[in-house]
Amino acid sequence: MRIVVIGGVAAGMSAASQAKRRAPSADVVVFERGGWISYASCGIPYNLIDPARTLDDLVVLQAEEARKDRGIDVRVRHEVLAIRPDRKVVEVRDLDQCAVREEPYDRLIVATGAAPVRPPLPGIDLPGVFVLRTLPEGAVLKRHLAESGPREAAILGGGYIGMEMAEALRRRGLAVTILERAEQILAGYHDEIARTALEELRRNEVRVQTGVSVAGIAQGTTPRLLVVQTDQGAVAADLVLVATGIRPDVALARAAGLKLGPSGAIAVDDRQRTNVPHVFAAGDCAEATHRVSGLPVWVPLGTTANKQGKIAGANAAGADERFAGIVGSAAFKLFDIEVGRTGLGMREVRELGLDAVASVSRHRTRGHSYPGSRTIRTVLFVERETGRLLGAQMAGGDAVAKRIDVFAAALQADMTVSEVEQLDLTYAPPFAPVYDPILIAAGVAMKDLAARKP
Amino acid sequence: MRIVVIGGVAAGMSAASQAKRRAPSADVVVFERGGWISYASCGIPYNLIDPARTLDDLVVLQAEEARKDRGIDVRVRHEVLAIRPDRKVVEVRDLDQCAVREEPYDRLIVATGAAPVRPPLPGIDLPGVFVLRTLPEGAVLKRHLAESGPREAAILGGGYIGMEMAEALRRRGLAVTILERAEQILAGYHDEIARTALEELRRNEVRVQTGVSVAGIAQGTTPRLLVVQTDQGAVAADLVLVATGIRPDVALARAAGLKLGPSGAIAVDDRQRTNVPHVFAAGDCAEATHRVSGLPVWVPLGTTANKQGKIAGANAAGADERFAGIVGSAAFKLFDIEVGRTGLGMREVRELGLDAVASVSRHRTRGHSYPGSRTIRTVLFVERETGRLLGAQMAGGDAVAKRIDVFAAALQADMTVSEVEQLDLTYAPPFAPVYDPILIAAGVAMKDLAARKP
Repeated sequence: MRIVVIGGVAAGMSAASQAKRRAPSADVVVFERGGWISYASCGIPYNLIDPARTLDDLVVLQAEEARKDRGIDVRVRHEVLAIRPDRKVVEVRDLDQCAVREEPYDRLIVATGAAPVRPPLPGIDLPGVFVLRTLPEGAVLKRHLAESGPREAAILGGGYIGMEMAEALRRRGLAVTILERAEQILAGYHDEIARTALEELRRNEVRVQTGVSVAGIAQGTTPRLLVVQTDQGAVAADLVLVATGIRPDVALARAAGLKLGPSGAIAVDDRQRTNVPHVFAAGDCAEATHRVSGLPVWVPLGTTANKQGKIAGANAAGADERFAGIVGSAAFKLFDIEVGRTGLGMREVRELGLDAVASVSRHRTRGHSYPGSRTIRTVLFVERETGRLLGAQMAGGDAVAKRIDVFAAALQADMTVSEVEQLDLTYAPPFAPVYDPILIAAGVAMKDLAARKP
Repeated sequence: MRIVVIGGVAAGMSAASQAKRRAPSADVVVFERGGWISYASCGIPYNLIDPARTLDDLVVLQAEEARKDRGIDVRVRHEVLAIRPDRKVVEVRDLDQCAVREEPYDRLIVATGAAPVRPPLPGIDLPGVFVLRTLPEGAVLKRHLAESGPREAAILGGGYIGMEMAEALRRRGLAVTILERAEQILAGYHDEIARTALEELRRNEVRVQTGVSVAGIAQGTTPRLLVVQTDQGAVAADLVLVATGIRPDVALARAAGLKLGPSGAIAVDDRQRTNVPHVFAAGDCAEATHRVSGLPVWVPLGTTANKQGKIAGANAAGADERFAGIVGSAAFKLFDIEVGRTGLGMREVRELGLDAVASVSRHRTRGHSYPGSRTIRTVLFVERETGRLLGAQMAGGDAVAKRIDVFAAALQADMTVSEVEQLDLTYAPPFAPVYDPILIAAGVAMKDLAARKP
């Protein structure tokens, strides 16, 4: 039995490890195009903050350890060029020797991940223009920060990477401008939440321009200077980060006849099987079922990649495990606040044709008169007729991420806001007021529903 | 319509406010024995830490405001001496004028709370010996700290108040010794959790003696010195805090024929009705239904008091609302760690005759290589046959309280540990590793269950 995995980061290494654990006698082979496997890519922006830390810190498992300790045949700098399902082989190029070989598989797991979108802008390939997704890309950027001492950064895109990198670069002492094409940063978040993030950015002297269209990047008057040309004027910078989004890396899959879903990522069932026999897919290249809508979606996140990888690995090794699906939980830190979401946002609600109320509330995070209390703003999306919770978003301090997790559990259990309001949550002055912001939000949503009953 | 409330703190004022909101034309009268209403008693230990803060900070609502802004007839320093359900009156003494009057009611809400147990020890009434439950008791203790400058405290009892006051008194610079009769501190917590708390106490130079029986308190060699006599020797102190527990304050209720439940607190149905017509009870004097066991329990906590009070008030005003019950969620801060629990503990599991596994795990709180990661220890109680989650306890840092809330939601939804393991929780390096300690704990529990299958 030979199990081949394409991609050696989150989903790929989870799959390989699980396959080997379930089928110790199987040959488990991982082909990874890059030089590292199994690294914590979500940690890259935080690592960049500290010049003293090496990016190697983020490597969870070395290829050598994977071989020795786990018995996985890891081959880094090996790029898979094609999948031939008819003959159950993959074509692999050894990037150091330039040799191309066919490698057979009994079971194949596609974990090719996602790649940054590089918009076809003039000047996108100039020196000083970066994307940030992989560890090598992080290393290039970190070296630039150390060696070129840039002072002004322009970030194209106001999504997660844009937010995290705005903080990282500010902490490295750079002036930072975010240029976002849409009218608000953080697409997919409610205006109340996006505005909170915007305030936090401005409080930390990050310039933010929204509704701005970038025409190109040009060389400035000195070798190091770049000029980002936009419909609202030019922005000078000596570092440009392109963070306009990512797309699933499905070229191999598509060419091999793997069915793609409506999102453009690989369609899988709850066992992580693709439409092609013996071929599984997992992680950022694959879809997942959203438990609230019941529909396939593409929400590329590290946790999901790890979980799907485990299931793909187990099933490739002969098990019959099912992925429970996602509710789309995500969170990030932005200077002194936390921002997070779970479930559907208003855009998804509309796309699904659901009739929902967006209920906005604010509440403090600590007990009456306890020092250091902060404010959390919450938006709940609630189905009007049934009161069913559809989604939750929060911004502020403290413990937003873990409060979002409470909503994630409520979504997974298909709770109504009335049931959320009845949750028996902990109360202690350092951690929560008598009525936690979660309960306050549910109470406000109940009132909003009652007020808007036809 | 005249709605009378006995007790003006958490449950009582929640009840009165809700009753007046629901029935604006009703007379709502609150009799409160003490001088303050509506204060955050859980905040007292934290307030004591800071000499500059006044305890008035903890008052959420002044009696005068309740009258003016909410139209509630609040009478402080009025002690109810008896309830006469046959004539629907209460006997009330005005403590300032010593007059006793009968006051009629149409609906009565008993919110008499709980009182500290004062064990019948010799010397328990000596100056320098304190209990801590009410705002006036807090004020007396705070004055003693400011004026007498005590240096050595002995705390009888290693429960919540003992823990919080050990921290408060250490922060005020006192040497602190906790004397606990049982073999471990924090009765009701698993040994793994209690040990974590013990380590944190010792790390902060709190002396802890367990399995120690206190025989009495004697005057020492100087007027200010006290000696706590125990079976393990004498402990000198100039401040003794008796924190050996609380009991529901049910003298009035019992005398009036209100039925008490198995716990000794007032038995209520899910509408907060007692066995006596037109009489409701809420808060620390009343039981609540535990949603995991389905049985009435007495778990006196501020959140439950507020929620029950609201429901009692609404129903006294003619509504028909139900209390969903509790899962027994509680948390506290102990120096640099958080400790919390929800659901059943091993003692309750045994009392109910359930066959359960206690599954212990440890995991870090932040992403791979993210700075400042802490450790959380988790104990899950899981029904062996079904895999149903029965309870969860955690200790460590960070965000233990809010993680316990995730388990509380899982309990409320009757989840199995397999379902908990499938929760889609947020992941971002500052807040959680890829697999949150919650998911790790559920995974370990699944393995423990599999290993111990007959």
